[in-house]
Amino acid sequence: MSDTLTVSAPADFHVHLRQGTFAELVTKHVRQGGFGLAYVMPNLVPPIKNTEQALLYKAQLQAIDPSVDYMMTLYLSPELTPAEIRKAKAAGVAGIKSYPRGVTTNSDGGIESYETYYPVFEVMQEVDMVLNLHGEIPSSASSNTCVLNAEAKFLPHLRALHKAFPRLRIVLEHATTRAAVDCVKELGDTVACTITAHHLALTVDDWAGQSWAFCKPVAKYPDDREALHEVIRQGHPRFFLGSDSAPHPPHKKSNATPSSPCAAGVYTSPILLPLVAHLLEMFGALDKLEAFVSTNGRTFYHKPARDSDKVVLRRTKKVVDEIWTQGDDSVVPFWAGKELEWEIAES
Amino acid sequence: MSDTLTVSAPADFHVHLRQGTFAELVTKHVRQGGFGLAYVMPNLVPPIKNTEQALLYKAQLQAIDPSVDYMMTLYLSPELTPAEIRKAKAAGVAGIKSYPRGVTTNSDGGIESYETYYPVFEVMQEVDMVLNLHGEIPSSASSNTCVLNAEAKFLPHLRALHKAFPRLRIVLEHATTRAAVDCVKELGDTVACTITAHHLALTVDDWAGQSWAFCKPVAKYPDDREALHEVIRQGHPRFFLGSDSAPHPPHKKSNATPSSPCAAGVYTSPILLPLVAHLLEMFGALDKLEAFVSTNGRTFYHKPARDSDKVVLRRTKKVVDEIWTQGDDSVVPFWAGKELEWEIAES
Repeated sequence: MSDTLTVSAPADFHVHLRQGTFAELVTKHVRQGGFGLAYVMPNLVPPIKNTEQALLYKAQLQAIDPSVDYMMTLYLSPELTPAEIRKAKAAGVAGIKSYPRGVTTNSDGGIESYETYYPVFEVMQEVDMVLNLHGEIPSSASSNTCVLNAEAKFLPHLRALHKAFPRLRIVLEHATTRAAVDCVKELGDTVACTITAHHLALTVDDWAGQSWAFCKPVAKYPDDREALHEVIRQGHPRFFLGSDSAPHPPHKKSNATPSSPCAAGVYTSPILLPLVAHLLEMFGALDKLEAFVSTNGRTFYHKPARDSDKVVLRRTKKVVDEIWTQGDDSVVPFWAGKELEWEIAES
Repeated sequence: MSDTLTVSAPADFHVHLRQGTFAELVTKHVRQGGFGLAYVMPNLVPPIKNTEQALLYKAQLQAIDPSVDYMMTLYLSPELTPAEIRKAKAAGVAGIKSYPRGVTTNSDGGIESYETYYPVFEVMQEVDMVLNLHGEIPSSASSNTCVLNAEAKFLPHLRALHKAFPRLRIVLEHATTRAAVDCVKELGDTVACTITAHHLALTVDDWAGQSWAFCKPVAKYPDDREALHEVIRQGHPRFFLGSDSAPHPPHKKSNATPSSPCAAGVYTSPILLPLVAHLLEMFGALDKLEAFVSTNGRTFYHKPARDSDKVVLRRTKKVVDEIWTQGDDSVVPFWAGKELEWEIAES
């Protein structure tokens, strides 16, 4: 087996780059992790809700690292009118992100019913703007809904949206279940799905009592993880990487008090391409690396690779750093202290 | 509704009292929590594996608080011979605890196959000694086994044991699933089941990112918790309290590092009877309090209540202390900082 791998233009189609000095630390990790394209989530405080805010945020990110192509999104909220969609499209905003209320970091303003937004989706379909779905419904004891079945129970909403807007491009974000994989496969070519790196490694056992591996959606059963592996091994063109890399300060990840849980999120940006190569090799899908991290997503998003964006990986035994720091900010990556079999040789 | 409740002789049929100075702190909490009987688990370091060790441990516990009736158990291991069972029975040891290998605190020496122990179970059945089962099978990705289905997948072993030894009294400990409740109901009168206080309150959502609510078996789906509520509301005589109150030093509960998860265990001893009353009232089973915390378990274990052991609860609004300390040891109880509707008036 070759000791180097060349990957054309890796693109991360779901990443959290935060704000302020924390953004200065983590935005640089996109390129460091081997990626030249970042599809940027809008769940800041306050959320990115209009074109002007998105352009301002993009300018802030470009000031930190101008070498990355930032694709911007807006947070789906009642403020988002059909007119604003047209404006956003004209300004190059790529997608609209929908968060069900209260299911993850900064989602308190999330939506409760999709039908309210049908006029917005109509215009999105017309102007060809992507709808990015956090595909979970809120927990409810009376309907036996909890973090374990929140994604499976969301799938009827995905089916209904696709039926109502068959030409609207929809991405089900960070799928974690066999049910989600099967559902997306079954739907038409306008429906795609991102998969994170960490959900290729984790199951529920890994985050039981281990807050560093806790994220939303939570990692599920071993068979769900196997379904993610299978669809990547198959090279299915509508499944691609969206890391959902979500940095939090270490004290928010390591410490729970009886009244306050740990933050949800796993951070993979600074090691992303080597990590994905490592994991894909573990489950026999290394030959699908370029399809998963570049071709499939770029095809769906109409973002062709440039030849100049190649990244070369070489085989190694390298232990991942325990912490990454800049000024007063720091962040602990997934796989900290563990060995990866690949590293970036040139990019 | 009355503002006081009298409960006859509360008995906790599953508790961890630890060793050394930590035992001095937590053993006193049995009586403080309203209980005069403690069925003591043997998973110390090293485990309690023979009669002599059990009697020595019992003497240590009696030296800390002589007012509590300690029922002792041995850890099922290859050292446990039929002759040792007879000796233990003669010395008043009440039960034998089986831990599947590696599934919870100090279970590395747990069993891998029950058939090896059939000669031991034969003698246990003959002398009428109880078999206490930690009912989970070890996780295995290839068989899609994880902490969520480990209990349901154990139930065929329970059925097989009951079939092979129909007169052997068996307790399925700390049931957390509807499947386990249904299975125990279906089996004969020699099979009973303990339920913890915390599993009446928690679901998987509560321990996601919240290590203080993490225990083994993990709390499951809302419908599983509902099944626990239902069987207590029904007053089923073979279901009773075993708190599985499991103290750990606070730093082992609050802090995870990327390489080391938090300890599994929820600690309820010092507030146990008020907590159980509070929870049963929340799901409409307060009239079953005495059956659940006393009558049912005492009947199964042949430990009749004495009239002198009555405990009186009175209605209150009392916030649970955040931490309980003695010398260098401390422990944080479940429900810390939250209000309970009942307190102990006299015992």
